Amino acid sequence: MAPPIAVSFQAGDIGTWRIERIDPVIGDGLPPAKHLAVFEGTETPHSSARWTLRGFTSNERYVERHERVALTAVQQPLGRPAATCAALIPIRKSDAWWELTQDERREVLEMQSQHIKVGLEYLPAVARRLHHSRDLGEPFDFLTWFEYAPADAGAFDELVLRLRETDEWSFVDREVDIRLAR
Amino acid sequence: MAPPIAVSFQAGDIGTWRIERIDPVIGDGLPPAKHLAVFEGTETPHSSARWTLRGFTSNERYVERHERVALTAVQQPLGRPAATCAALIPIRKSDAWWELTQDERREVLEMQSQHIKVGLEYLPAVARRLHHSRDLGEPFDFLTWFEYAPADAGAFDELVLRLRETDEWSFVDREVDIRLAR
Repeated sequence: MAPPIAVSFQAGDIGTWRIERIDPVIGDGLPPAKHLAVFEGTETPHSSARWTLRGFTSNERYVERHERVALTAVQQPLGRPAATCAALIPIRKSDAWWELTQDERREVLEMQSQHIKVGLEYLPAVARRLHHSRDLGEPFDFLTWFEYAPADAGAFDELVLRLRETDEWSFVDREVDIRLAR
Repeated sequence: MAPPIAVSFQAGDIGTWRIERIDPVIGDGLPPAKHLAVFEGTETPHSSARWTLRGFTSNERYVERHERVALTAVQQPLGRPAATCAALIPIRKSDAWWELTQDERREVLEMQSQHIKVGLEYLPAVARRLHHSRDLGEPFDFLTWFEYAPADAGAFDELVLRLRETDEWSFVDREVDIRLAR
C-alpha cells in the first residue's frame, strides 16, 4: 500500500495535457482553460492557473479482500505510453451521503450499485487513480483521474454512463467531466 | 455530519493548555514544551512553536448505525467548563494495518478489540475528537484529543490501558501520551 500522495490539478496555459472539453454534468461546471498540469506533492499554483483542484491518494475505503485481489490482478499504472487520452471527473456527494455510516455507504456503493464490479469490467484498458478532496475543504469531494488509449474511448464513455445510472449517483450533487489528450 | 475541520496542535510557550507530561509509549516521544495551542482552520505555526501536529476531522470510518445511535445519545462536546484536563494521543499504525482492507480493519478494530464498545463505557465523562493525519504526510496517522474533569482522570487512564491491551494495538508502531490541564 503506497503512502498517500498530495496531488494538484492546475488548469491554465501550461501543462502536459490539452483540455478538449469541460462538461458540467450535475451543477456548476468549471471555467475553460487550454491545458492541465498534474503536480504530485504540495505545489503552489503556477501564475497562469485559472483554477486548481487538490486532493490526496489514500487507503481504500470500501474494497474487500476478494475485490482487491481481482483489481490488483488486472489494474494498470498511470503513464502508459499508449494511454494518450485522460479524463478528470470531480464529484461532490450530498449531505445525505455523508450522513450514512460506513456500512450503509458500502451497501449503496457496491451491493446496490456494483461500483467496484462494474469498474473491474473496464480493466486493464482504463487506468484510474482516486484523490480525496473533501477533507481539505475543497469544492469537490473526489477527483478521479483516468487514462486510456484512443481505441478505448468508447468503452470509457460507457463506463461513465453506467455509473451515472446507479443508486450511488443519486447522492452526487455536483459533477464535471473534463476530457484531455496529450 | 459536520464538514471536516483542519486542526493544528502547536506546542511552545503559548497556548490555553499547560502541558503536564509527554510520555513516549511506543517508539520516539516528542520534544518537551510548556503549552499547547489548538487552532481550528489552516494556521501557520506561531514563532515560538517547538512542534506542530496537523490533522482534520472527517466522516467516521468504522462506526455502524446502531453504534452511532448509542454514541450520539451520550457523547459530549469539547469545551465543557468542568473538563479542565485533556490528553492528546498521537498514534501511527504499521504498514501491516494499512495493508488490510476496510472489512479486515473493522474486524480487528471492533470484532476483536471492541474499540467502539469499550470507548462507549467512558461516555459521557470523556469527550473525544479524532483527527486524521496520515493523508497529510504527517509523522502520525491519528491525533485523538480527549477532555475530562479531574475526577474522571482515573477512568480515563483505565480506558487508555484497556485499549493498549487490544489486538488493534499490535498494529500501533508509534504512540505518545500527552497530558494537559487548563
